[in-house]
Amino acid sequence: MFTVIGERINTTLKKVQAAVAERNAEYIIDDVKKQDAAGATYIDVNAGARIGHEEADMRWLLEVVQSATQLPLCLDSPDPNILEMAYGLVNKKPLINSISLEGDRFESMMRYLAGKDCRIIALCMDDSGMPKSIDDIVGRARSLVAELEKIGFKRDDIFIDPLIQPMSVDIRNGGIAMQAVATIVSELPGVHITGGLSNISYGLPQRRIINRCFLAMMIAHGFDSAIMDPLDKDIMALMTTADMVKGNDNYCMKYIKAVRAGKIVA
Amino acid sequence: MFTVIGERINTTLKKVQAAVAERNAEYIIDDVKKQDAAGATYIDVNAGARIGHEEADMRWLLEVVQSATQLPLCLDSPDPNILEMAYGLVNKKPLINSISLEGDRFESMMRYLAGKDCRIIALCMDDSGMPKSIDDIVGRARSLVAELEKIGFKRDDIFIDPLIQPMSVDIRNGGIAMQAVATIVSELPGVHITGGLSNISYGLPQRRIINRCFLAMMIAHGFDSAIMDPLDKDIMALMTTADMVKGNDNYCMKYIKAVRAGKIVA
Repeated sequence: MFTVIGERINTTLKKVQAAVAERNAEYIIDDVKKQDAAGATYIDVNAGARIGHEEADMRWLLEVVQSATQLPLCLDSPDPNILEMAYGLVNKKPLINSISLEGDRFESMMRYLAGKDCRIIALCMDDSGMPKSIDDIVGRARSLVAELEKIGFKRDDIFIDPLIQPMSVDIRNGGIAMQAVATIVSELPGVHITGGLSNISYGLPQRRIINRCFLAMMIAHGFDSAIMDPLDKDIMALMTTADMVKGNDNYCMKYIKAVRAGKIVA
Repeated sequence: MFTVIGERINTTLKKVQAAVAERNAEYIIDDVKKQDAAGATYIDVNAGARIGHEEADMRWLLEVVQSATQLPLCLDSPDPNILEMAYGLVNKKPLINSISLEGDRFESMMRYLAGKDCRIIALCMDDSGMPKSIDDIVGRARSLVAELEKIGFKRDDIFIDPLIQPMSVDIRNGGIAMQAVATIVSELPGVHITGGLSNISYGLPQRRIINRCFLAMMIAHGFDSAIMDPLDKDIMALMTTADMVKGNDNYCMKYIKAVRAGKIVA
């Protein structure tokens, strides 16, 4: 089953920031209920944009979001102290966003993760920066999985993010991402692969068609999760269709159900 | 570059059959000009539906179609005698549709092809019928390429058709097609891979979204040609986008040109 990490509760988005500043619970509840109905698997919660308010904002958001949905949350902060507080407030096993191989972040996140019952997004980033090749991505994925396994993580709880880079910068970036996914699926069976997709189309026109086409092509290679907007009907329709074509939808039942619900229109 | 084999000049289509019966050249010319403008690489010409008239119909169609376009033709008939006549009437190196490993057909087509300057669509079909597995498809592709190379064909002139089968019959059929394409690309570098896509969605609702999603997923694995309708704007837009994401469009120029021409709308 494809894991949709709903990205809409993020204070870098203007309307969400205003709603959080005004403690407008109705706005947040409405948005979360819509993401839930549209097929989100996790609701990502990021309260990082209002400097000095992250702890209070996250605390409030966690209460409001969990009043609106039974879905588990994706706790999204660079600060392990915020994540520690948030971990104590969630009702369901959360997904943590994120760990990387960057020195400071890696050490503090490993201390945070040890002994916790959670899932984790692991970014293929290290102190030298963004990955530049298939080998960079796969090598970092291998290291992240090995380290996380050492502290007791199961592969099913690890979501590798290969860090998609724009086609406009290098025409090979789409192929690099796809080949990296294929290699991770074959070398590290059991791990999930996720990421934000929209970077692929940065600098190009008509970005939405590139994003959803790329999602289908990534799913073709084994990508099985995305950090995305569940309210974007076009990309959700293509995700459901691609997951079916990939063979992950027995008797095409999820696809047919989505068609009957009016979610897929050719 | 992706090879689009425009499938619209086929007498099994009611309107085309009527136009051919009435010798309505205007209808045929208009359709061919539209396919050309929409980005077809070849115009497929099939005159097989009016029993007893194939030779005369094909002769007339070849003249009319070539008066409308400079594009090369894809000569589509099960009858080597018709293909022999047609070969003598084309202005450009044609693509021949098709050879397979079925005993009688294979022998007569090999005799036909020997010494000709043409390209060929090679179907992964043998006397036991449709392929049932990845190994069936790849094994037949290997045999077809070996036999065609023996009579002087270059790989660039061979278009393997893996014969897509419906997801509604077996949920694995999409994955089998994709894996077969990936294997052919890796084992038989230089050959092209083509086929009709719409079989994948047979028996399912909202077929067009499945067909275009599947096209993007097949391109992700190296599929580089399709027998398709160039006037279907949605599938052409996704083809152009997927070919760019795959890395086949330097500086994204073909994609950007298509956007500027209004052919791609997100």
